[in-house]
Amino acid sequence: MRIVDIRELTVPLKGNIANAVVNFSAHTVSLVAVVTDQVRDGLPVVGLGFNSIGRFAQSGILRERLIPRLLETPPEQLLDEVAEAFNPQAVVAAAMRNEKPGGHGDRASAVAALELAVWDANAKLREEPAWQNIRRAASLTAAVESEPALSGSDVEVYAAGGYYYPGDSLSRLRDELKAYQQLGYASFKIKIGGASLTEDMQRVAAAVDIAGAGHRVAVDANGRFDLATAMDYGRALQELNVRWYEEPGDPLDFELNRALIEVYQAPVATGENLFSCIDTLNLLRFGGMRPGIDVIQVDPGLSYGLVEYMRLLQQLESAGYSRAQCFPHGGHLINLHVVLGLGLAGCEAYPGVFQPFGGYSPQCRLADARIAASAAPGFGLVEKPELLPYIYAVAPELERNGARL
Amino acid sequence: MRIVDIRELTVPLKGNIANAVVNFSAHTVSLVAVVTDQVRDGLPVVGLGFNSIGRFAQSGILRERLIPRLLETPPEQLLDEVAEAFNPQAVVAAAMRNEKPGGHGDRASAVAALELAVWDANAKLREEPAWQNIRRAASLTAAVESEPALSGSDVEVYAAGGYYYPGDSLSRLRDELKAYQQLGYASFKIKIGGASLTEDMQRVAAAVDIAGAGHRVAVDANGRFDLATAMDYGRALQELNVRWYEEPGDPLDFELNRALIEVYQAPVATGENLFSCIDTLNLLRFGGMRPGIDVIQVDPGLSYGLVEYMRLLQQLESAGYSRAQCFPHGGHLINLHVVLGLGLAGCEAYPGVFQPFGGYSPQCRLADARIAASAAPGFGLVEKPELLPYIYAVAPELERNGARL
Repeated sequence: MRIVDIRELTVPLKGNIANAVVNFSAHTVSLVAVVTDQVRDGLPVVGLGFNSIGRFAQSGILRERLIPRLLETPPEQLLDEVAEAFNPQAVVAAAMRNEKPGGHGDRASAVAALELAVWDANAKLREEPAWQNIRRAASLTAAVESEPALSGSDVEVYAAGGYYYPGDSLSRLRDELKAYQQLGYASFKIKIGGASLTEDMQRVAAAVDIAGAGHRVAVDANGRFDLATAMDYGRALQELNVRWYEEPGDPLDFELNRALIEVYQAPVATGENLFSCIDTLNLLRFGGMRPGIDVIQVDPGLSYGLVEYMRLLQQLESAGYSRAQCFPHGGHLINLHVVLGLGLAGCEAYPGVFQPFGGYSPQCRLADARIAASAAPGFGLVEKPELLPYIYAVAPELERNGARL
Repeated sequence: MRIVDIRELTVPLKGNIANAVVNFSAHTVSLVAVVTDQVRDGLPVVGLGFNSIGRFAQSGILRERLIPRLLETPPEQLLDEVAEAFNPQAVVAAAMRNEKPGGHGDRASAVAALELAVWDANAKLREEPAWQNIRRAASLTAAVESEPALSGSDVEVYAAGGYYYPGDSLSRLRDELKAYQQLGYASFKIKIGGASLTEDMQRVAAAVDIAGAGHRVAVDANGRFDLATAMDYGRALQELNVRWYEEPGDPLDFELNRALIEVYQAPVATGENLFSCIDTLNLLRFGGMRPGIDVIQVDPGLSYGLVEYMRLLQQLESAGYSRAQCFPHGGHLINLHVVLGLGLAGCEAYPGVFQPFGGYSPQCRLADARIAASAAPGFGLVEKPELLPYIYAVAPELERNGARL
């Protein structure tokens, strides 16, 4: 069994929305296809992955560094012991040959796209959904009976959005959240930091009003605030019972995070812009984060993939944190399977935006603020109609007699 | 005045040498040309820069993200107030449009190559060496009279090397260091961590013996050690009076650095694999580094360029550190001008290796363990014969009537 080809395609994100810092319409994603020599159900097994959303495609690093190193590696070195699956850890080690320590940024997301495609291939080899494959790899199968978070094939999902609109922002914000409720969502995350504190608190109060009792509204500053502003917002938010206060300052400003948490009692969430175990370990060591309270949002699709993420979970658990504190950034099919497979707290969704990658396939059932994976093998990316043209572009061997899935 | 074109070229590093972690023969560098509409001495002013050495070229990030953003920016936004020079800070801001916080890795070195080319262009516009231009920009000109480190056009340089050789490693190590002495070097840096502790200490003792009295030998573990090994080496090195103990552990493992420094009294050096101010600030906050003792090796050519480096110097000085603790990683012409311009402690050189970028031009005088810049405008890269073919490839307009410089 071997990898016969690895391809990558840069796909632009659709939608002209902005958070407090960036405009996403310029952002791109790398879709990666790991083509194997195996066949299932009459089609070659092709692992598909992508580097989450919200940053950029990595075609340079993939083409110039990672893919050549992998294709030069003797195929047997990339297999597990019984040669029935690819070994994601060995794949990462081969892709990272001659890379230096430190500098976890673009490289981390390039590796992630490749590594996640290997997880997709492994699940397709066994003809099972990726979450089942991940659960077995994480040795969590035995825990399924005893651990409620692991017992079903659905997980909590909240709707992220709460954008700024020109004009009557407050009334359009209410409409936006009500539309999410119609879709089946019960909890929300809205932007802060793009308006004055007073205006932002009106927005938060409006959102809390619509969501109803029970900490159903989180707020996201997207790393925008300095310490004084983060504190001002923290004091104001304290009154409003938000679910969590996300990325108040620069993601690497652990001292700011620690100082804020000394004052702000409710949960703080961060980690979506930390791209390695060592960066996250520094957050735990120096950032004042609290086991059982704060939320860790590291996104495996931007930070070296699932093997690194499982290592991170070990770090978290040995520091007293639990999986129930982990909401990975990035609302899409891959993270649905990761959350299900590893028994994490839940998923986010950005209804309607970040296409073609954002959101779930029509086969994924959304009900009572929970999202269920379908039975498709792997991450089920071919079930997502918006993605299919790009999948056929990067892996034309998946077209069955011209009759598209 | 405006930028009319920006080009980049991936150049492989020559030489099959290895440190404790990576083999450099697979490494590449991005040579960037910022072509302006200005003419000096009958030739267009073309700023040339590169992203230091020891990691990889960044053609993907340059071509797909940074260069298009710069070329889309209204030219007047990239000029200083009097429109006599380009504004490197404005160039970085434009190149970083829509980039998110965090993830300082490959992107930081792509930005650096571009930003340094702008500094080269600015010095060429004034027809002066880059170090003079940098000194003026840093408002250090007035300090020249009073500050000995700023008074000349030469700086301390040490020879880095001390590689592992197959076979009689110790005798070849002695020969290598003696050859550096013949060239005019008096201090050295050698590798550790690629052999047993006992063998490494024999190597260090041999190097100290050749170098003579006065802390003339530094050692470099290239981020390889875990805490226990770093401590074992620290205790053994303590006896040997080395100049500094470089990158004992993972560059982001600030806790390891702090724990080591509690035990190891002599100077520790690190920072070459930190690529932003915030990462270095975390080193200062949490890594146990000591003003007046330890060495900071952040390399502007890998970490967003000179504007970010000047910001870092401010951080360092307000935390009680001095410029005399700064030896930027990367022995090449750009860092010679940076060290001279900013009054830093000194340079490293890797005699004969990392070509075509490593080392200085024949016009740079090496004597008594000090290296002097030439009078060439900018960084003087065209004076380096090994680089010239690549410069002509990326900026053919610099060829004068076919008669090469």
